Amino acid sequence: MDELRRAGRLAADVTADHLGGVRDRPVWQPVTEADRSWLMRQDLPAAGRPLTDLVHDIRTRVLPYPMGNGHPRFFGWVNSAPSAAGVLVAPIAAALNPSCAGGDHAGVLLEHTVLRWLAELVGFPHRPGGGLLTSGASMATVVALAAARQRAVGRDGADVREEGLYGLPPMVLYVSAEGHSCLRKAAELLGLGSRHVRVVPVDGGFRMDVDALRALVTRDVRAGLRPFCVAASAGTVNTGAVDALDEIADVAAAHGLWFHVDGAYGALGALASGAASAGYAGMARADSLVLDPHKWLGVPVGCGCVLWRDPALARATFSLIPAYLRDDHEDGLGWFSEYGPEQTRPFRALRTWATMSHLGRDGIIRLVGTTVRLAHTLAAMIEAAPDFELLAPVSTSIVAFRCHPVDRDDRLDDLNRRIPAIVQHRGRAFLTGTRLAGAEALRACLLNPATTEDDLVLLLDEIRGAATTATAEIHP
Amino acid sequence: MDELRRAGRLAADVTADHLGGVRDRPVWQPVTEADRSWLMRQDLPAAGRPLTDLVHDIRTRVLPYPMGNGHPRFFGWVNSAPSAAGVLVAPIAAALNPSCAGGDHAGVLLEHTVLRWLAELVGFPHRPGGGLLTSGASMATVVALAAARQRAVGRDGADVREEGLYGLPPMVLYVSAEGHSCLRKAAELLGLGSRHVRVVPVDGGFRMDVDALRALVTRDVRAGLRPFCVAASAGTVNTGAVDALDEIADVAAAHGLWFHVDGAYGALGALASGAASAGYAGMARADSLVLDPHKWLGVPVGCGCVLWRDPALARATFSLIPAYLRDDHEDGLGWFSEYGPEQTRPFRALRTWATMSHLGRDGIIRLVGTTVRLAHTLAAMIEAAPDFELLAPVSTSIVAFRCHPVDRDDRLDDLNRRIPAIVQHRGRAFLTGTRLAGAEALRACLLNPATTEDDLVLLLDEIRGAATTATAEIHP
Ligand SMILES: Cc1ncc(COP(=O)(O)O)c(C=O)c1O
Ligand SMILES: Cc1ncc(COP(=O)(O)O)c(C=O)c1O
Repeated sequence: MDELRRAGRLAADVTADHLGGVRDRPVWQPVTEADRSWLMRQDLPAAGRPLTDLVHDIRTRVLPYPMGNGHPRFFGWVNSAPSAAGVLVAPIAAALNPSCAGGDHAGVLLEHTVLRWLAELVGFPHRPGGGLLTSGASMATVVALAAARQRAVGRDGADVREEGLYGLPPMVLYVSAEGHSCLRKAAELLGLGSRHVRVVPVDGGFRMDVDALRALVTRDVRAGLRPFCVAASAGTVNTGAVDALDEIADVAAAHGLWFHVDGAYGALGALASGAASAGYAGMARADSLVLDPHKWLGVPVGCGCVLWRDPALARATFSLIPAYLRDDHEDGLGWFSEYGPEQTRPFRALRTWATMSHLGRDGIIRLVGTTVRLAHTLAAMIEAAPDFELLAPVSTSIVAFRCHPVDRDDRLDDLNRRIPAIVQHRGRAFLTGTRLAGAEALRACLLNPATTEDDLVLLLDEIRGAATTATAEIHP
Repeated sequence: MDELRRAGRLAADVTADHLGGVRDRPVWQPVTEADRSWLMRQDLPAAGRPLTDLVHDIRTRVLPYPMGNGHPRFFGWVNSAPSAAGVLVAPIAAALNPSCAGGDHAGVLLEHTVLRWLAELVGFPHRPGGGLLTSGASMATVVALAAARQRAVGRDGADVREEGLYGLPPMVLYVSAEGHSCLRKAAELLGLGSRHVRVVPVDGGFRMDVDALRALVTRDVRAGLRPFCVAASAGTVNTGAVDALDEIADVAAAHGLWFHVDGAYGALGALASGAASAGYAGMARADSLVLDPHKWLGVPVGCGCVLWRDPALARATFSLIPAYLRDDHEDGLGWFSEYGPEQTRPFRALRTWATMSHLGRDGIIRLVGTTVRLAHTLAAMIEAAPDFELLAPVSTSIVAFRCHPVDRDDRLDDLNRRIPAIVQHRGRAFLTGTRLAGAEALRACLLNPATTEDDLVLLLDEIRGAATTATAEIHP
């Protein structure tokens, strides 16, 4: 253990140095050929290597090549910087190394607490057994839609687990055009078929068009299909839009649909003050709510979460233990592995517990408030700039926009499509693009409270620089 | 960062203390009411708490309540002690915090290396893109069977992702009676229906009866069903049996079945010397092979892995990117998220790389050899004891047996069913039970090279003590 103690302190220092130095390094940088070769082509050594050598290798060969998301000028996708508390407890979780499949030990007990905290934080009704930590929102979505499928088929007196989907009328899932792709992936994995995923159009604010939803459901019912679930978004990945959850919940209730809310990124936006949080009414009516601790909260990946209204149904969707044999302990909840597809389950709760405890409820609210304000600041800068165009209202902490040089109206798509990679390679900021209403867009996701207004100014300058380069490519 | 540096060193010390002291603590102990209340019922504090307080809490409230698997006298399920190297690098992975969905950064590049190493280690043919790290074998199995489903439906010119399963003839999966329950769970999740999972009987060595497999396939074909996959085991969870992989591969080839091998626990047994590894011939013929780094290798959970023969098919099963738009970088592989259900993916590769590098190929072979030898030693002790009965041959590092007091032949099931919980509560050893050929069995899984022969003696004594207690309960 002395070797581990020494190496562990070294690792702690390397970790602190890395996090302390983030701002002064490139956000992202290309991998040198020598390091690429080391990372990709090294052979498994025959003899073992000392622990400190491994830390040294990581310091020189691994840490220089981040994805970028630790940096205050990383604005790509929805990837946050790791919380200090989450980093801190990582080795302890690994040393205890429980499987949180179930049983009576700290890992399992603490997961119950974390799930309750997450539910309470966003005002979702919580009953014991009312959720599960997962590797991310994609898996949380699979779990949620599996429960939706279970309930829908069960209403016909059939059991999808036993019979499969073969004989059934196709089940239709409704997602908005701005819904995350993990919804389609989940539907495909579950055997539901992407042709039975209806893409509901969005309104000018990129929110699900609820009239269109109603019309699609009615049409499908007439066609003999079975609408079974509507998936709304509380914070879309492209613009951070929050669907009209309450209204969609009404549609779901009227048609007996499972009401799923994808709040993987945005559920925490309910903590923002005032108008920003107004759109969240109805979120608590969800049958299932996905909320990723590894996004806005900054818990190190992978940590997603699904919360559900009816623990018994979730258990009925996955448990292999016949009801009469269930090991209910005193709590009547059984094992976590009965509520999802994973058997061995990592101790995701510890870093979530630590992150939430370190911030406290007030700190979490501050984190959300700060980043929402940063997004509004960036949006204001964009609106004030002659060469940028805001493409969507800011509802949470994502800003969708594009570069629109004053003297040019042509080939804007071509221009904006090229910008992200150029910005990324310059290494001073990192943003990603998307398509919005048929146009190429840039988007910046604000998750890091260490980001400053100066960082935002620099981001826009970097984009301008990239636009110059791109323009020279397009109009040589 | 100074707070994190200080707290990080403290965490390193706490970690080293915990691991150094494992042998002297109970393997498992019940949670006190005070600590249960803390773990389960604490509230999210309003104000944030300092990092060192969190470490203190963990030391006093969390670390005393392990699942048990760090201890050299833990013999339950298939859960290993964490590798020192895996623990060491955990905070660094959390600090870098990449999403290994894709892109060009160290996390992604190192995962390619780790996948190649795992394939090379067990002699599985590896092509770039030939695998994926997952949260565990359960998810790896879902990924593997999804690819099998994709291929089977595709042979009819249909696309299961697009159409779903509705119109199709039921697809049949073959698993042995000793196959892991995650196979059934995966089939259910995929919408295939557990009634289309054929349970093939096993022979006296708890290996799949290949004649019975042939007969079942023939019968299903005649009934108009579609056999699509056979899942063999390289190391069953109950007895560690290795199926006749080569022969099953022949059946799969003859009938066009996907040949899946569940080597979650036992694939590494191929590294054992001599007779023990003989049964593995044919493993390299698998279309998909599951192999969990978080089992025998000791990588901290959760880290599973699926390896496959045909990377293009795996990609076709999950990728949402139309072929003509794929971001192939220079390597033609695209993103990891195109090969499985997860979008954001944690940096599982770092602790696997560190564990394998620290052991080296020789060290891994030694680890396997040592634990296989320990299993044979335990089996020999059991055979030599008048009050124990070996219930299965030892093929890898699992020993299945039961307690059979010399003076009693009745209520052996009742007796053996009671033993594990009593042993667990005594806190000096931990084993779990199962059912084998209709009888209650005890099983000990040997994964920890720190286990000694004295530990095995103590295990048997603990079981004897538990048997005395249980006998008094049964025959009061
Ligand atoms: C709104 C939304 N839903 C779902 C996901 C998928 O989450 P994960 O990457 O954790 O699987 C994302 C990822 O960015 C997202 O933004
Ligand atoms: C043979 C076998 N397959 C699959 C699994 C499931 O693995 P996991 O718990 O990593 O999902 C296990 C778990 O013990 C196993 O022993």
